[in-house]
Amino acid sequence: MSLGPGSAEYLAPRARAALAASQVVVGYQTYVDLIAPLLTHQEVVATGMKAEVKRCQAAIDRVRTGQDVALVSSGDAGIYGMAGLILEMCAAQGLKVGQAEADGEVDLYLEVIPGVPALAAGAALLGAPLMHDFAAISLSDLLTPWEVIERRVAAAAEGDFVVVLYNPKSRKRDWQLQAVVELLLRHREPHTPVGLVSRAMRPGEEVVITTLENLPAQPVDMQTIIIVGNSQTFRYGDYMVTPRGYLAKYQVANHGQPPVSAADPPVGE
Amino acid sequence: MSLGPGSAEYLAPRARAALAASQVVVGYQTYVDLIAPLLTHQEVVATGMKAEVKRCQAAIDRVRTGQDVALVSSGDAGIYGMAGLILEMCAAQGLKVGQAEADGEVDLYLEVIPGVPALAAGAALLGAPLMHDFAAISLSDLLTPWEVIERRVAAAAEGDFVVVLYNPKSRKRDWQLQAVVELLLRHREPHTPVGLVSRAMRPGEEVVITTLENLPAQPVDMQTIIIVGNSQTFRYGDYMVTPRGYLAKYQVANHGQPPVSAADPPVGE
Repeated sequence: MSLGPGSAEYLAPRARAALAASQVVVGYQTYVDLIAPLLTHQEVVATGMKAEVKRCQAAIDRVRTGQDVALVSSGDAGIYGMAGLILEMCAAQGLKVGQAEADGEVDLYLEVIPGVPALAAGAALLGAPLMHDFAAISLSDLLTPWEVIERRVAAAAEGDFVVVLYNPKSRKRDWQLQAVVELLLRHREPHTPVGLVSRAMRPGEEVVITTLENLPAQPVDMQTIIIVGNSQTFRYGDYMVTPRGYLAKYQVANHGQPPVSAADPPVGE
Repeated sequence: MSLGPGSAEYLAPRARAALAASQVVVGYQTYVDLIAPLLTHQEVVATGMKAEVKRCQAAIDRVRTGQDVALVSSGDAGIYGMAGLILEMCAAQGLKVGQAEADGEVDLYLEVIPGVPALAAGAALLGAPLMHDFAAISLSDLLTPWEVIERRVAAAAEGDFVVVLYNPKSRKRDWQLQAVVELLLRHREPHTPVGLVSRAMRPGEEVVITTLENLPAQPVDMQTIIIVGNSQTFRYGDYMVTPRGYLAKYQVANHGQPPVSAADPPVGE
């Protein structure tokens, strides 16, 4: 199930009810901490980073012994979260999985509870950068070969997609973001607006709007998502906006020119 | 602000509070109807399709006279929703916009309240198709030239992105989806899993899993979103799963082979 960005204000009632009804909560320590105030009777199985397989196995084992388990992901469990891995593991183990209301014999019931993804929470704080077609790409090459990531960044740049970068950097992965910026600069203007959001809607929230050429100088960590505008994205005060074309179509007075230059000083710098 | 898929179970507490505090609710009639049970004292300004500019202008006008206005979008307001248009219109009209807590003189306060996007709600009902890099593309060519859409579909196919198609078809736009399928078939296998979700988590919900070659035969309307798997996506019972690579990396026993063939009979057919 999905926790959303982390604040109780963005936890869906369905997710809250599932937490309340669960006997065991399984998750990454940092995210379990976010919902600590909501936990009363639940046993907590929290593990560290890179223990995803272990975490899912613990959830499967508990469910198989008859317990109600909430396997939690921050943001949306279906976007770089735990929903896929648990289904993969059930499949690899030959388990028959059904939805809670499903008929017939199954080995375990599973409901994927969606939430507000990091890309939507981040976009809301930046204004409206995702108003037109976009591509989400994780820069983590732990599980995906770098050539695949590179090929996707190039394809997204060629298609003039707004680009959302997940997992841009970690202590051990320090050169990938710079490589991606160089790749994007082959297709996009140096002053293309770029938004960075860390810890959206939770303690330590940071929002920065800068430009593609200045992106490498920004502080970035594993909890930052980066949104790179397309060729139409413009800066408007403290906002980053990707137009969808309504005004160009319906209002002759607006010739698609942003009223504030994209080269304005970035927010938060 | 965002309503999520439409059920109160997925309306974030923050959105619910904003609705309760508003004096006026502005939105597309179909979506305003979804929240009718939550409205008490609010004046409702509902308009039909293609009246987006009128709707945003009504919201701006009301706020300028001192009223608290909730401009509602289904799904996430920042993904093909109203957040972008209202910022564009404020920019075109030279209005200074600030966040509710912002310092300084502004012409109007604006908070973008994110929600569960249609792509996340649909993905949850399908299993976990968005577990790896994906691209969202609207097939509506009312505001975007068809060549741009075609170029994006081709780029997403070349990059082996999972592809989420918004607005796949309407009464007047009946050939675009077929054209997109033909384009995708140049890069992807005919049996690539494809999920269709209409009216996720609200009355009339429909979920179908089929294959790319059989997609054109499926019933599709403006309220359907379509998720086309990448080269790794597999069918597992009633689920569609895009692996992220954990098992290939950590478990030698699983050679990346889906345990259930992607050619299994589609759900819902």
